[in-house]
Amino acid sequence: APMAGELRCQCLQTEAAVIHPKRIAHVELIPEGPHCGVPEVIATTKHGKKVCLDPTAPWVKLIVTKIMNSKSNKL
Amino acid sequence: APMAGELRCQCLQTEAAVIHPKRIAHVELIPEGPHCGVPEVIATTKHGKKVCLDPTAPWVKLIVTKIMNSKSNKL
Repeated sequence: APMAGELRCQCLQTEAAVIHPKRIAHVELIPEGPHCGVPEVIATTKHGKKVCLDPTAPWVKLIVTKIMNSKSNKL
Repeated sequence: APMAGELRCQCLQTEAAVIHPKRIAHVELIPEGPHCGVPEVIATTKHGKKVCLDPTAPWVKLIVTKIMNSKSNKL
């Protein structure tokens, strides 16, 4: 995972192809800040591959919403 | 960061106190899956502390939305 102290943008470009949510192990959200002028979304697939996603893409927003709202919650 | 191959829930409990978005370096979203029946949201503060957040809490959803939508975007 990108380090908290990293001093530049992690993503040189973002993935254009849609990734199925089932392939995603976890997603990292990095706010914009002094290190980088844009927010970054880095998905790690279940095969361990890291992929930069476009936070403005509707399908990326949908993946994030799906993760947050999944409700087989055993709370 | 929690490993992709981790086989159980990472969060034993979630933080009740609201954390200011400016204190957050990055946020990790882990979908529910065979390893854990609930989605998990793990924030790392700029001081490097990891904190589990409740994905159902409105302020947590707001933080995620804010990160995704921040638009000083230099794209």
